Order: sequence, then C-alpha cells, then structure tokens
Amino acid sequence: MNDAKKRRILLGVITLGAALAMILSRGSGTGVTPSAAAVPANSLDQIMQDRGLTPDEAEAALKTFVPPGKHDEFMMITSGGHRGSILLYGIPSMRLLKEIPVYAPDTWQGWGQGDTDSAEVLKNGSFGKGLPVQTWGDLHHPQISLTNGKYDGEWVIATDKSAGRVAIISLRDFKTKNIFKIPNANSDHHGVFTDNSEYIIVSTFFPTPFSEPNGYAPIEQYQTKYRGTVSFLRFDRTKGEIVVPESFQVELPPYFQDLSIAGRGPSDGMFFINSMNTEMATGGDMEGKPPMEIGASQREMDYLHVLDWKKAVEVAKDASKTKVVNGIKVISLPTVIAENLMYFVPESKSPHGVDLVPGGEYVIVSGKLDPHVSAYSVEKIKKAIADKNFEGKDPFGIPILKYDACLEAHIQTGLGPLHSVFDNQGNGYTSHFLDSTVVKWTIGPPYNPPDKAWKVVDKVSVHYNIGHLQAAGSNTRKPWGRYLVALNKWSVDRFPNMGPLHPQNLQLIDISGPKMKLLSDTPTIGEPHNSMIIPIEILQPWAVYPEVGFDPLKMKHSEYATLQGEESIKRDGTTVTVNGTVVRSHFKPDIVRVKEGDKVVFHWTNVETAEDATHGFGLHGYNVNLSIDPGATQSAEFIATKAGVYPYYCTEFCSALHMEVTGWLLVEPKKDVKG
Amino acid sequence: MNDAKKRRILLGVITLGAALAMILSRGSGTGVTPSAAAVPANSLDQIMQDRGLTPDEAEAALKTFVPPGKHDEFMMITSGGHRGSILLYGIPSMRLLKEIPVYAPDTWQGWGQGDTDSAEVLKNGSFGKGLPVQTWGDLHHPQISLTNGKYDGEWVIATDKSAGRVAIISLRDFKTKNIFKIPNANSDHHGVFTDNSEYIIVSTFFPTPFSEPNGYAPIEQYQTKYRGTVSFLRFDRTKGEIVVPESFQVELPPYFQDLSIAGRGPSDGMFFINSMNTEMATGGDMEGKPPMEIGASQREMDYLHVLDWKKAVEVAKDASKTKVVNGIKVISLPTVIAENLMYFVPESKSPHGVDLVPGGEYVIVSGKLDPHVSAYSVEKIKKAIADKNFEGKDPFGIPILKYDACLEAHIQTGLGPLHSVFDNQGNGYTSHFLDSTVVKWTIGPPYNPPDKAWKVVDKVSVHYNIGHLQAAGSNTRKPWGRYLVALNKWSVDRFPNMGPLHPQNLQLIDISGPKMKLLSDTPTIGEPHNSMIIPIEILQPWAVYPEVGFDPLKMKHSEYATLQGEESIKRDGTTVTVNGTVVRSHFKPDIVRVKEGDKVVFHWTNVETAEDATHGFGLHGYNVNLSIDPGATQSAEFIATKAGVYPYYCTEFCSALHMEVTGWLLVEPKKDVKG
Repeated sequence: MNDAKKRRILLGVITLGAALAMILSRGSGTGVTPSAAAVPANSLDQIMQDRGLTPDEAEAALKTFVPPGKHDEFMMITSGGHRGSILLYGIPSMRLLKEIPVYAPDTWQGWGQGDTDSAEVLKNGSFGKGLPVQTWGDLHHPQISLTNGKYDGEWVIATDKSAGRVAIISLRDFKTKNIFKIPNANSDHHGVFTDNSEYIIVSTFFPTPFSEPNGYAPIEQYQTKYRGTVSFLRFDRTKGEIVVPESFQVELPPYFQDLSIAGRGPSDGMFFINSMNTEMATGGDMEGKPPMEIGASQREMDYLHVLDWKKAVEVAKDASKTKVVNGIKVISLPTVIAENLMYFVPESKSPHGVDLVPGGEYVIVSGKLDPHVSAYSVEKIKKAIADKNFEGKDPFGIPILKYDACLEAHIQTGLGPLHSVFDNQGNGYTSHFLDSTVVKWTIGPPYNPPDKAWKVVDKVSVHYNIGHLQAAGSNTRKPWGRYLVALNKWSVDRFPNMGPLHPQNLQLIDISGPKMKLLSDTPTIGEPHNSMIIPIEILQPWAVYPEVGFDPLKMKHSEYATLQGEESIKRDGTTVTVNGTVVRSHFKPDIVRVKEGDKVVFHWTNVETAEDATHGFGLHGYNVNLSIDPGATQSAEFIATKAGVYPYYCTEFCSALHMEVTGWLLVEPKKDVKG
Repeated sequence: MNDAKKRRILLGVITLGAALAMILSRGSGTGVTPSAAAVPANSLDQIMQDRGLTPDEAEAALKTFVPPGKHDEFMMITSGGHRGSILLYGIPSMRLLKEIPVYAPDTWQGWGQGDTDSAEVLKNGSFGKGLPVQTWGDLHHPQISLTNGKYDGEWVIATDKSAGRVAIISLRDFKTKNIFKIPNANSDHHGVFTDNSEYIIVSTFFPTPFSEPNGYAPIEQYQTKYRGTVSFLRFDRTKGEIVVPESFQVELPPYFQDLSIAGRGPSDGMFFINSMNTEMATGGDMEGKPPMEIGASQREMDYLHVLDWKKAVEVAKDASKTKVVNGIKVISLPTVIAENLMYFVPESKSPHGVDLVPGGEYVIVSGKLDPHVSAYSVEKIKKAIADKNFEGKDPFGIPILKYDACLEAHIQTGLGPLHSVFDNQGNGYTSHFLDSTVVKWTIGPPYNPPDKAWKVVDKVSVHYNIGHLQAAGSNTRKPWGRYLVALNKWSVDRFPNMGPLHPQNLQLIDISGPKMKLLSDTPTIGEPHNSMIIPIEILQPWAVYPEVGFDPLKMKHSEYATLQGEESIKRDGTTVTVNGTVVRSHFKPDIVRVKEGDKVVFHWTNVETAEDATHGFGLHGYNVNLSIDPGATQSAEFIATKAGVYPYYCTEFCSALHMEVTGWLLVEPKKDVKG
C-alpha cells in the first residue's frame, strides 16, 4: 500500500472538514525525525550478555522473531477446546493472530451478543426442544477443507465433544456460518473431511440410546440399547452447508469411538476410527463398581474400526437398507455386517491417535498405555479382509482381523504415546504424554529404504504433558515440514504464577534439520486441543466485504442494506424499525424515540469501504453489542421493556472523533405508568 | 522445583496403580538423548541472512525474546474493551499470558457458564429489574490498587463504559470477585484508586436524567434534567468490596466527563476530570440538527474539572448536605458550588487524557484537535483558586479559573495528541492519533532544569492510530521506565489478512536509551484500551488454593466442600444434590440418576493439591461447564427439563487417563410420559 493511500484510509471519511483542515494546516513540525540508527556490529553480543542469552537461545530468538510490519509464514488454526472458539497463531512468531468465536459468544466481535444472525446460528446448533440454547462447546478438532487431499484454504470445520455437532467457518471472512446439530450424536470428539471435501465424517464419543423413546434407557441396558454412530455429512462447499437428504449414519457398537481419518492413495475409500472402552464399562463408583479409569482399561486391545466408506455411500442410497432415525438415514449394525462395511483390527488399548502417512500407505496408532507406536499396512489390511483372515468377532458380530496379519511395524518410542504427524522428508513424530517428549522416527518404504525404516532417530523434551502435536500440512498428501508445534496440556512453572488456573503451553520446534530444536514457549488461552498448520499464502480472505450492505452470514447482499441518504425510522404498530448507517464519525439516526413495550429493530450498515474501518454498536441496558465490519449490515432486535435513556455508541475506536460517535435510545414511559 | 517433585506432580495421584506400574517397568529406553548441540559462532549471522533480518531487527529479536522456560520481567494488565475482559501480556515477549473474564462469560474458565457464583456476580452487576442480565461490558481502564501511591499488586478494578459499574478482581487468583453497579451512572469510561486505595473514583461519561421518575426525560430537557456524577466508592481492601454507606456521589453538569486522576504530593486531595461536549450537544441528525461530531466540537475549550475530594468526603458526612438518590448519597450541584468543591480550568476542546507527572506537580492534558500538549501547574491552580482568579462561570455556576493563570507549558508535539505517560528519568511520552506517533518530551522542574524543560526530544512512528500508551509504573509515584507500549487502534497491513475484522496492534518500544526504539508488533484480540505495567515480582498469587474445599469467590472455606470418602447424592423432594469429588482420574459419583423435572445441584470439589491439576465438569445438554482449580469447590444447578442420557466429563486434559474421566447424568422420563 502506498503512503498516500494509507494516509487516506487512516484519516477516513472526513465529515468534520473545517476542524480537521484547520488542524492539518498548522502542521506538526517538531523538528525531530524518527530514529533509524544503525546497530554497531558487536551490539548483538552485548544484548546477549546483558540479557543472559545462551547461543542456543539467541539462535531461537532470530529464528522466531517476525519483525514489526512483516508477516508470519504459516498460520496454525487451533481449537480453543471448551473456550468454544478457534485460535489462530502465526508461525514462527507464535503470536495469537485472532480468535474466531464459534460455539460461545465473543462480545468484542458481536457474536452471540444481541446480533440476530449469530443468535440464530447458536439456536439452530443446540439440542432443541426442552433444553437450553448452548452457549459453550468443547471445540476439539479443526479441519481445513481439502481439494485433491491438500488444504484449499476455503473452509474450516470443527466438532464439539460436548454436544455432537459440527461448525462450518469460512476462511473468506474468518466467521462461523453455521452449526449443524447432528441427530443421534450427543458428542463428537473428532471429524474430518474426505479427500475432496465431499463428506464431513464425524464419530460419536459417548454412545447413547438414541433409538429409544425419549432417548432414554437405564445404564444397565448399555450393551443392548446404547449405540454410537459415524455420520457421513454431505458438504455443499458452495454454500458451506450440510445437505441432510444426502447424508447418512452408520450405527456402531457402544464403544467410545474417538479419532478418525479418511484414506487416500492405496487407502482411498477407507475410513479408520479409533476406539476405547471396548470393555463397555459404565462406571458406577458409588454403586460398588470400579470407576471408568479401571473399568475401561481391562482388556489389552481395543479395536481400530476400518470402514469402506465409499461402499457405505452406495448402501445408503438403497432405502431398503436404511431406516430414518430422528431425521437422518441410518445403516443399522446388522446391515453393516451383512454388507461387509466394517472390520476391526486389534490396537493397543485406549489409543488417542489414528494417523495416516502422507501417501496413505500406513495407519499409525499408539495405545497410550503401551510404549510403542504401531504401524499398520493398508495393503496388509486389505489382504486380510480379502482372505477373511479373522481372529474372531466382537460381541455384535463385527469380524476382527488378525493383528499380526495387519501390523507392519512396532516401534518402541517411550511412555504414553498419543499422536503422530509427518514431515516432507519421510519422518513421523509422536507425542508422549507421560514422558513429555516428541520422538522422531522414520516411515517405512517408499519413504525410507527397509534398513532405515521404522527407526527412532531423535527425541526432544517438551513441557509438559503433551497431547496433540502438529506439523505443517501433516494431515494431507503434501506436508510442508519446517515447523512442529507441541500442544502441551500443563505448563506448571514455565510462565509466571497467575493464580491456580495455569495456561497450557505451545512449544515451537524446528524440524528442518536432522535434529529437532525447541525454539519457544507460548502460553495459551483456552484448551488448544489440536490444530492444522497452513502456509498463509494459500488463504484468500476478504480484507473488506465485497459490497456495502453485505450480509456476513449469508455472504450475499443484505435485504436490510441501507446506504447514506436512505436512513429511516419506521413505526408499524408497536414495532419500531431503524434502518441506519454508521460512518466516521456518526450514527444516522443518532436519536431514536420509542415507547416502553415497543419492539425495537436496528439494522445498521457500515458504509465504509476502507480496510479496518469496523464500527461497533454498543447499546446501554439492553445487552447488545454489534461489531459491524466495513460494508456489513448487522441487526439486533429486542423489546424496550423499561423506560429510560439509553445511550449507544461506537465500541470500536474508529477515528479521531470516535468519542463523538454516540446516540440516544429514548424509551418513553407508558402513559399509565406516567400518569 | 526439583525433577523428582515435578515428575510426581505431572504423573499425579496414581489411582490406576497396576496398569501404570506395568508400563513404567517396561522402561522407555530409545537409546536417544535430547539434543543440545552447540551453535557455531557464525550461525547467528547465517540465520539473519537466511531470514532477511536487518541488524536493527536482530537487535529487537534479542531484546524481546524470552527463552523457553524463562519468565517475562513485567506484566501488562490490559483492558479487553468490549470483549469485557482483562488481558495479561508479558513484557518484553508480548506473549498473551492470560485473559481474565469479567463482564462477559469465558466458557473455558467456567465463568458465566452454569457456575452459580459467576451467575450471581453477573446478575448483581446488571441494571436490574426490567432489563436483561448483562453478558458483555466495555471494559476500559484497569487500575492496580495502590499503597502509598505505588502498585501493591493486590487488586485490579475496571470500569465499564457501557453500563456504569466497577469490577473488582483479585490478583491472588486472577479472578473477578464482584461487579458493583453504580447507581445514577449509566456509563463510566474511567475509574481510579486514590493513593492508598481508600476510594475508587468513577465518573459518568453519558449524563442521564437519573433523578427523574423512571429515569426518563425527553432529550429536549437535556440541560435542565440530565446530569453526570462522579462516584467516590469506599473500598474495603480486605474483602474486595464497595462499602455503600461510606460512599457518595458528586453531581456534575451534563458534559461528557471522561478520564480522571487522583492527586499526590502537592496535588494530594485534588481530583482531576477531563470533559468534552461542554456544548451540551445531543445530536439529532435525522431531526435537522448536526451530528455529535459537529455539535460537540463548536467551542474552542472544554473544562478540566478540579475537585477537592478530601473536602467532599467531609461534606458527604453531613446528612444535611446530601440527599439519597437511588440508594446512594449525592452532593448536589448547588452544594458543590456553595462548598467550593469544584473549579474548572479551560482545556483544549475534546481532550482524551488527563495525566499526572510522578510527583504530582503537573497535570498534562491534550486536546485532540490541538497539536499541543498542555501542562498545568498544580501550584498555579491552587493559587488561582485562592486568589479567586476566575474568568467567569459555566452555565451551572461553577467558577472557571483563568487559563493563563494555571498553564505552565504548551508544547507543540503533533497532530491528534491524546494521552501522556512518564518514565523514571523525567520524560513524558504523548500518543498522537492522527500522526500515528509517540513523542517524547521533557518534564519541567524539578525533573529537568528550566532550560531543558518542556522540550520535544524524540519521536517514533507507530502503526496505526494510537490511542492509549503505557509505560511501566507510569500512573504511580515510582515509574520504572524501560518499556513503553503503544496501543494502536488500527493495524491495516501489519498482520496477515484474516478477513474484514482486523486485530489491533500493540507495539513495544524500548525507552531505556535517549532514543526510542520500536521493538515488536503484537496483534490483539478485543480492544486493548488501556493498561498498567507492573514488575511480575510484585505479584503474590496463589499457585493452588490454600486448602481443599475452597470457595474461589468468597476466598474462604466453602460450605459445600467435599473430601474424598464424603461424597453423597441426596434427594430432598424433587431436588437432588450431589456432593462430589474429582481427582486424577475420575469423578465420584460417576453415575447420577434423577427424574425429569427434578432440580439438580452439583457441588464438585477438586481434591488435588498439585499445581496445574485443574479439572473441568462439562455436562451435555444442560449448557454447563465448570472449571475447578486445585482445591476449589464449584457448583451448578438447573432443572432436568428433558429426559435422556447426558454424559459428563472432565474438560481439562488432566492426566494419562483423562479420556476416562467421565460420568452419566441419567434423566428418567416421567411415568405419565413413559406409560
């Protein structure tokens, strides 16, 4: 941007011409120019000495610093956990670039704070009749949409462990467009896109008796009446919506289904889901039974679910093979078996991660109570299925493939292995919760020759209790490598004491060389559960909305758009509708007169076209704050329940005369109250 | 912390003895030790070259980097604006260390998300009958409590421009303890502590007709019936509460009262408030009147309010001189005049800041439409009052001191001067919104000799549209200097494009030398309006609560504390009360059986004593998530409105067996529904 243009934007739409012209003519010559002194050659050494930096630390400083005005190379799109949001971090600076509100309100961004659009999104995404509108979610696994198995930078989806739903966020404006409450799913820990984003596939974590009347059955009927589901949600990538008639579910046994991944390359059409609690323990620690931590850890092996999802799509098209349960087609467990849609592969008990190497040849699983990483060969799994090489069936009749027939490698890596990610040089990286380490190992052929395959080659300590880890592009056909981030659950002493609630700790690790190198610690807000790392250059966001009077939710012209000169206040019975504009530096109208008991509807259009010229509409008393980006039209409505004088004002510091961007909602008392 | 202790904490309370013992005995020997390679001497140059860093940029990198595991020196306690929170940044790293929820919910921290304590705090802090509970606020000016005019690190208060209230946050656990809704104040842009935190003093921004029936009067009666107030709220620093019977208000003319500061040293007992809109414009841009930006900018001068607050305290003790309005004592405007409590000093129109040099000798004001910083001498103001050196009275009868009799210096600094802060070397720094600069100038005697006083000595560009700025300890008798942060309202092109809503930009500036040096840019969430910077070593927080079964809100033993072995589920009519515990790695109880329509009350005690061992209680369907820090007891209650099976689980990743920390709320259908 050239300086003249920048200056025009910063100064904005000058409506107070006289005052500013007067000021500008005075000039501001102080006789001092900004400093730009050259640094003596030895000053870096001096600073290192003054600040007690070791050479390693100085190297990390220079590797992570993004100078003022320059941009990060990568963006890490991270879940906020039970903060219900998505957090964006820049890499290598690890600066928190933005938070996108999803399941929980963000009053700064006007999300869920009196804005009619977000209120509708949150309501539609809730459990429904008889239960409150959800104002939180446990946002766990953001996934970037894929084209040909690579990030296309268009959409992000994110599941909610607390509620069984999926949110769809546009990367054009970094805003949530809709939340789809999945029927027959009370929870979903994880969801993924297929290779071309045809489907969003989401498994339940907690099984429930969703087919029973009232969705209720005693916990004693857990094995007979509780079931999990995996949902195949047809994604309309033009609209950013789920197409329910083209979606379906596959009924699953009442294990806790967990993470999952869709195949590619040799595993194209396959879908893998981890499970735990194949013991089907239900707890009951005040009823004479062991707690879940004991009950769900009895068996040595749980089951990796291997689905033929492309076949399931065909089965779901046959109405005789599905039933509609709570509005969505379901393929029942007997049909799953009859149609050979699913097989189990034994996996070390209670695993966290199921990951797929870039080409799709190996599935990587780690049982958290087993100090090994297990690599399954997709070809071996396919052959075992073809050969019916079973070791038995589970209690529901699902065939279990022989473990040895599927396993490719078993690498001893350390205590508490959880998740694995991959770089662009044939290496895997596994997080270890108990050891607090990241261990680097080599993938088998064709990534490395057999004699160099499945070997541990490096290990780095992290701080502390790492859960997920992520590397740039790891979940795709084309990883970029370079950086890895450890998402550590505990920070203990890594940051200043700020009371009993500690931040979690994101650690940036340089993986460009043969040895990993820990670069920096970053405290977090929320629970940054998992992430995806994408080069920033792939993103194509709008810096301002494409037209004035734009509906951010529907991403098209707003029916309530108001241009300057078109402002109005209209009364229709007891409803007062305000079609207003906001610009630097006033609201129009700036006085709105209503009567106690009236319904008041505000439609505000920010008529600015300059980048960054966001205005807010903060209204006293009625709990409303809108954030209105340049070009956007945003609405609020409420009943004026109480007489009085309610100022409103711009909540975004927009201009030199920002403090004057004010107005009055005057609510006249009812006559009978007055008289 | 030694390694053995750290390991014990990380592994936690081992309840699954057998499984873990088995694992630990296997060992994790991978034959690889963590890397700690030395850096070649020239590698810093190589990294600079590879990353294109200039010597200036490399210097900034080394000055700002806080190595992994090391701590920042200072903490910046920053307002989150209409995010309704307080943000904590580390200096020099500028990492976001924490967000403290205040006026708006934070579902991660369980604030306002089904927790009975925070629900009560938010409700008590709302407008009251007839208006909704506020779930946002425009948190503008955090202030750290003072002892002898210096930060004591005990409390933070923060006002709300949108609602006229003050929140009180403890720096023992970094949590909000209470929100006091100030009567007769619809808004408060700013509030400060007196020198020993005896009072919190808060002015209204928007005047309202608070004495009228229904709090309503037509805007046409603005001059006669609308009034501002400045509240003197007696602070009980032991309890962290406002003592209403010892509090009072001073009625003010219907100007927009803005920032303020309490005197010290020669200005001890004085209180200074800026004002704007002494024109008493009300807008009306759809009623044939000019918008506020024009109407409120007509006069060349507004009024700096100078109050004798210690005298006002005495006047307020005399019942004959106050009236009680909406529950609080008010000194009316005629009494203010009769008792000589307030004088006006002309100030350049529409100023933003009123700041006091460390020793309290000069008051610094900048009219944003005047390219000068004005320094008023406290001694001259006192003399003008004593001499009755008036130039007239305002329309309400307040005497106006002669401008020239009070002014000490008038420094030309640039366009759009707003706020000033001070270092420990006799310098002031003023932000300039229109120029986007920070200008450094010298304070007058005794800080500098007369020939070196009131001179501009340096200027640095900031990016862009700076509002407040802050330097370590600037608002106290003892600034620390070293670092200055520019809180810039716009970032335009400084960060990657992330849609139409841009972050704001915090810029760290090194002020330790004669020339300012811009070190780094940091994007923000929220609107980080103003801040205070304190050395971290002054803070004395709890790392865990002092006992198991602690009530975080009341900061004492909880009446609902439950220890292990004391857990219970009790039914009393249609109320089911659960007194439970949570520990690594289970809830007890983990099955709760109720009937549709029952009231369900959960009291959970986290029985952990290890630092960082926070547990969550996330309940499906009923919109509840608690965050339960080590030792804390937290509660939730709701009606089980809908039959079904509702899992609950720990939302903080607490341990290796975290995924197993689950339970079931079973809501049995009513018999009539079932049969």
